[in-house]
Amino acid sequence: MPRSTEDLLTPGLVCDVDRVEANLRRMQRYASEHHLALRPHIKTHKLPALARRQLELGAVGITCQKLGEAEVMADAGCADILVSYEVLGERNLWRLGALARRVRVTTVADSPEVLAGLAWAAGRAGVCIPVLIDLDTGYHRSGVATPAHALALAQQVAATPGLELAGLFTYPTLPETGPRLRETLQGLAGCGLRAVVVSSGGTPGALDTHLVPEVTELRVGTYVYNDRTMVHRGAAAPEDVAVTVLSTVISAQEPERVILDAGSKALSSDLVQHDLGLGYGEVLGHPRAVIRRLYEEHAVVDMTGCGSLPRVGTRLALVPNHVCAAVNLHDEIAMVRGTEVLEILPVAARGRSR
Amino acid sequence: MPRSTEDLLTPGLVCDVDRVEANLRRMQRYASEHHLALRPHIKTHKLPALARRQLELGAVGITCQKLGEAEVMADAGCADILVSYEVLGERNLWRLGALARRVRVTTVADSPEVLAGLAWAAGRAGVCIPVLIDLDTGYHRSGVATPAHALALAQQVAATPGLELAGLFTYPTLPETGPRLRETLQGLAGCGLRAVVVSSGGTPGALDTHLVPEVTELRVGTYVYNDRTMVHRGAAAPEDVAVTVLSTVISAQEPERVILDAGSKALSSDLVQHDLGLGYGEVLGHPRAVIRRLYEEHAVVDMTGCGSLPRVGTRLALVPNHVCAAVNLHDEIAMVRGTEVLEILPVAARGRSR
Repeated sequence: MPRSTEDLLTPGLVCDVDRVEANLRRMQRYASEHHLALRPHIKTHKLPALARRQLELGAVGITCQKLGEAEVMADAGCADILVSYEVLGERNLWRLGALARRVRVTTVADSPEVLAGLAWAAGRAGVCIPVLIDLDTGYHRSGVATPAHALALAQQVAATPGLELAGLFTYPTLPETGPRLRETLQGLAGCGLRAVVVSSGGTPGALDTHLVPEVTELRVGTYVYNDRTMVHRGAAAPEDVAVTVLSTVISAQEPERVILDAGSKALSSDLVQHDLGLGYGEVLGHPRAVIRRLYEEHAVVDMTGCGSLPRVGTRLALVPNHVCAAVNLHDEIAMVRGTEVLEILPVAARGRSR
Repeated sequence: MPRSTEDLLTPGLVCDVDRVEANLRRMQRYASEHHLALRPHIKTHKLPALARRQLELGAVGITCQKLGEAEVMADAGCADILVSYEVLGERNLWRLGALARRVRVTTVADSPEVLAGLAWAAGRAGVCIPVLIDLDTGYHRSGVATPAHALALAQQVAATPGLELAGLFTYPTLPETGPRLRETLQGLAGCGLRAVVVSSGGTPGALDTHLVPEVTELRVGTYVYNDRTMVHRGAAAPEDVAVTVLSTVISAQEPERVILDAGSKALSSDLVQHDLGLGYGEVLGHPRAVIRRLYEEHAVVDMTGCGSLPRVGTRLALVPNHVCAAVNLHDEIAMVRGTEVLEILPVAARGRSR
């Protein structure tokens, strides 16, 4: 195993373990202070070791987006998992039931079709599945559109054997979130129903979650590593960024086209924000460098104004625009302190999109 | 194993084997007719089975971008591999030497630093490494900027034990390509040097390669599957698209937000062309649908004007904007004929970016 970052092949993920630990502790401290249950989303790191550390520090359980991630994490000993995704299809429902026989699994629903499937899964596996009603509070992704719809689904859950109404689910916490949740909770109370859990999430606004007192549970993923988008949005300081993609200069013909070996298959093509002109990532230590173009295995960096041309073979650390997308492209991640490589971990749940 | 596409988990890659075969044959026929050596780039499919089929049909060898891809393909029996990438760093050079002891490996260089490393690799492994001089002919990615630079490097190759001047390398074939190659070849001849191979590539302009008679070898990758970008650029017909990402409608609250389970971790965030407003992929059979937003595991599709709302659970096939990026996100691909699943292949060289 490489003992120094100098020995790592590029392009590759490098993780500063001390920064991760600080990020984990900061969020847990916030959640604890505000009596919020922290249920970190593992979609960012996809690492059993970090999920276990999050639980050790006080997380009540974890969140997974897809069943495949949940299966990996259950194998790794995570005993309380929220699958924050509408599960559909017989094969997936069978998997969900099997998982629910091993660990506590909560999931979400925003339609009668999803609920019917969950009921079948519960019956087939002989388990009770707690369900959060997925309520859109302004983000316009999944989620029922109105409190009235949420109430109708909650009543369906309460009337269905094998299902248990656990509460409400939304993402992220927006200005409309509080009023929408309040109206829905009042509707539930009017029917004699109760939402024990009100789950919301998202790293950018995480530290303002307490301003919406209806929320009881916080789901956050990106905070563990942070990235250029989080810094740009003011949700993290540059020194909170824990993961970079280490790259090598493979060609340096002229300042406006310094070529790195990290392309979209190492960084992803995600932008900080469309048309912001920030390029495809930040070159650490060269704030004026712009990654102007990204091919599958090449980055073209404009280093005009960055002093002398870097030598071919120079290693440059890149801060990804979107670390969750970048991590999912790599089979392993080097955990480091300074230049010392402590261990290399397989990104166990990488690619588990189903 | 699933026997019908109905049984496949989503999101997942689905490959129409008959379309692939037609794409392979069409390109081989073009190359043969024009006496071009076809050296397909495996970065698109990353499948040993398709590399072998390309060789069976007449390809002279294959092209790999990264050493990791080449190692997978050598293990699969590919005996003549061009690593079309500047190889740097002791560990990589050691890998290159080891590979060159097993199969014929040609590689590229655009700087004295790269050549020095290749010389070390050749010496260390006791092999001779054929080298193509990487010449920029207008694309401004890697490659020396001028024919004079190319000539200087070619002379360095000729003077270095363990290295053999194989020819010239460029990408893609542009209007400037012919004149640049001509000037460089004349320079080489003036020094008593000869480029046996003049290699160029790129699917979009592939069928015009014969218009630049200096080119002897054609490298193409995307043609095997094609994608939305190729269709948009007129390089493929819709019926030449061989790979789609099968997805499921998980939420359908209103026509402007139909949610699919395929996000950027299944499709990639690549656009056909920035600011073209075409969205993140095409929904097959729904030409008016627009994938407006893409999250890691969600696509938000505007299906206004597509008739009645699709039912939750409906399966929709998506044509990726950039199939190479999409394929690299998946561990496996289902090879199908109609709705019959013939086999499921591991995407063996997926993630081999180093």
